Amino acid sequence: MTAEIKSDLVRDFHRVWHPCTQHKDTETTPPILVERAEGIYLYDRQGNRYMDVIASWWVNLFGHNHPRLNTALTRQLEKMAHVMFAGITHQPAIDLADTLVDLSPAGLDKVFFSDNGSTAVEVALKMSLQYWQQKGKAQKIKFAYLKGGYHGETLGALSVCGLEIFRTKFEKVLAEHLPVQGPDCFRCPYGLQRESCNAECFEPMEKALSENSDSLAGVIVEPLVQGAAGMMMYPPSYLKKLQWACESLGIHMIFDEIAVAFGRTGSLFVCGEHDLNPTFLCLSKGITSGYLPLSATLTSDEIYSAFYGDHRDLKLFIHSHSYSANPLACAVANETLSMLTENNFLETLNPKIAAMKECGEQAFDGIEGEFRQTGMIAAMELTGKSKERFNYEKRVGYQVYLEGLKRGVFMRPLGDVVYFIPPLVITEEEIAVMMNTARDCIDEVLIK
Amino acid sequence: MTAEIKSDLVRDFHRVWHPCTQHKDTETTPPILVERAEGIYLYDRQGNRYMDVIASWWVNLFGHNHPRLNTALTRQLEKMAHVMFAGITHQPAIDLADTLVDLSPAGLDKVFFSDNGSTAVEVALKMSLQYWQQKGKAQKIKFAYLKGGYHGETLGALSVCGLEIFRTKFEKVLAEHLPVQGPDCFRCPYGLQRESCNAECFEPMEKALSENSDSLAGVIVEPLVQGAAGMMMYPPSYLKKLQWACESLGIHMIFDEIAVAFGRTGSLFVCGEHDLNPTFLCLSKGITSGYLPLSATLTSDEIYSAFYGDHRDLKLFIHSHSYSANPLACAVANETLSMLTENNFLETLNPKIAAMKECGEQAFDGIEGEFRQTGMIAAMELTGKSKERFNYEKRVGYQVYLEGLKRGVFMRPLGDVVYFIPPLVITEEEIAVMMNTARDCIDEVLIK
Repeated sequence: MTAEIKSDLVRDFHRVWHPCTQHKDTETTPPILVERAEGIYLYDRQGNRYMDVIASWWVNLFGHNHPRLNTALTRQLEKMAHVMFAGITHQPAIDLADTLVDLSPAGLDKVFFSDNGSTAVEVALKMSLQYWQQKGKAQKIKFAYLKGGYHGETLGALSVCGLEIFRTKFEKVLAEHLPVQGPDCFRCPYGLQRESCNAECFEPMEKALSENSDSLAGVIVEPLVQGAAGMMMYPPSYLKKLQWACESLGIHMIFDEIAVAFGRTGSLFVCGEHDLNPTFLCLSKGITSGYLPLSATLTSDEIYSAFYGDHRDLKLFIHSHSYSANPLACAVANETLSMLTENNFLETLNPKIAAMKECGEQAFDGIEGEFRQTGMIAAMELTGKSKERFNYEKRVGYQVYLEGLKRGVFMRPLGDVVYFIPPLVITEEEIAVMMNTARDCIDEVLIK
Repeated sequence: MTAEIKSDLVRDFHRVWHPCTQHKDTETTPPILVERAEGIYLYDRQGNRYMDVIASWWVNLFGHNHPRLNTALTRQLEKMAHVMFAGITHQPAIDLADTLVDLSPAGLDKVFFSDNGSTAVEVALKMSLQYWQQKGKAQKIKFAYLKGGYHGETLGALSVCGLEIFRTKFEKVLAEHLPVQGPDCFRCPYGLQRESCNAECFEPMEKALSENSDSLAGVIVEPLVQGAAGMMMYPPSYLKKLQWACESLGIHMIFDEIAVAFGRTGSLFVCGEHDLNPTFLCLSKGITSGYLPLSATLTSDEIYSAFYGDHRDLKLFIHSHSYSANPLACAVANETLSMLTENNFLETLNPKIAAMKECGEQAFDGIEGEFRQTGMIAAMELTGKSKERFNYEKRVGYQVYLEGLKRGVFMRPLGDVVYFIPPLVITEEEIAVMMNTARDCIDEVLIK
């Protein structure tokens, strides 16, 4: 390590507070000082290469430093980087809204832009609450959410998070909503398989919704894959049942597709793929293919119309962020959507999806736990012989991460779930390398 | 209007939900379709020019399409647009954190990055809450805030907002904190002047803090200028008293300088200018000179150290956004800070600040209400003869806005407060045009 790198890492240690990081760990393992990135690889200042198998927190679709995305950004930069979005509009945002509405299921008609996944969720929650008030149902102020659900960490989004680790320090300032036992296919209490069941585990949700429909404004879920919970995967039949229940009980269905949209499951949107019609659809992460913060909350004309009226009635939706619909981010998002929809791009994923499954299963062979996969998302949950979790203090997942660093693969397990959500442009050969390296790392940790 | 423009505006109307907008208004006044921007001017598709006197929601410092900022962005783009910020670090973020710590008052040692003003505030609130828990004072869970205060619109930030219009539809899901009557210099209940008083109006805050110090984690304020309240301005003596109270009572002082930092008041930071030492300093908006969403929450080593420890103790701060410390935004922010600190830039603002005052006072001569100014921020509050507010339904401010559009000046009054927070590169001549045009618009509305 050169003196210059050391000096920068010292500055990092003294000045930067990283997200979701216990800085004491950096005493022994300093962060990687990434200098540049290309395709699916990150390069540090010393020239070491790391495969970015989690796509920089699940955002990157087409690899780093992509010529088309770079050009889209610089072309927009020549016109303007940003302009406010109240009283003013601009082509990049109009095009993006238009494309999102065209590509998403019928009934999603309007697009509200904000900056990140948390705000996309906050917007959906706030619109839902205000809608019911303006429809004379002011008692509908609760949201049902899944134990295991994750929807961001601003305090509104956190109030519908079902993972204790994110909530515990902030419980006293969180609004009280309705946590519901969700699907847990690996440890299915009904003894069923996700491939063949009929979402029998919808039972507690059905009960929760029907017993609380008077007070429930909506229900929020991550469709098919509960990311932060450890890439927990469940079948679409659960979502079908959810839609029937929401429709019959008058409850908004909020889909948080922040992590799973834009090709991750093999389709543009989970809701479109499975013929589902959420009241609100929250998007972010991949929307700019990992270039810039941007998010969108889609909803129906029915919701929108409840906010439409004379100035004096004060029905408007009062929510703004300074950089709403940032033109640079919108321009990159437009190019991202072009690339996703041109030349049968999504179909070209099929052999890769097959490789994710095949290589993953092979690599996991003989390891205790579960290998699971949905499209271009895969996970290896490491457990003891009877599916029991390892002691938290053993830090199995963290040790796998450290082994990955030695081998040039940047994983960042969620607890003891080693997962893979690579840029979609990863090749089949690279998928094999990724899975086999993970196996090597796991062996190193569990066998030694 | 060409058919193409009309078609885009129709698409906008059908697909886009704009922030803080009653879309029924767009039936008669469609949004301006801005195509490009240069310096302090916006240009629509027909070539009409609008002076951006509110700097695109208070974000733009150096004008649109600035060669240095464009170059900073494209240079970073050649290396990488983005990479995740846990387990990884990068030069643009290290440099930015380092510079922010160097330029801000002593005692602000660590920088946590997020995406917008709301999240910068949420981070400060969450850090404050968790700090007290980890210091054995778990009962400290409330925040005091000013009636009139605004700190963003995610539900956590909104819970410390003192403006009814933003809160009213969401009250039932907001955590209950402690609203306190704040300064109101235009309608001072003590009959004093902001130039000569001793912040006698600190009385209710002193009472609130001393009576609730056991349960108060912190107090949050917008220093000197309460923006969304209508650019209400108050003297630094209030903040001095606040600091003494917070220090003696063990309450965190959170400064939301999102709108006022980076030259707006004539200095880089209000806290630095007035020798104040907040526990948390929230920054956003101007940090990228209006290019890209980015925010920062600064705090002390004392706060940070309460989160530092062994993995098993789970003391870390669990909060992340996918695009935390986006390298493109950090690169533009670094260039922004260079430009703010080179060649005595802030000193060159002095004659402009004098022009803001002089031209504004002249233009306001004979109008009922108040002209007020702090550095490069100015406001004209329009009232009846006895400072009484106009009826909300008269929409005086909105009519002034419409007159401004006819005259090529994009204002967006807050209620009936016409305000000016132009890019810092505005010239003295342009300041005169801006103020005189505002006068013409006001005359047109109030005299006709």
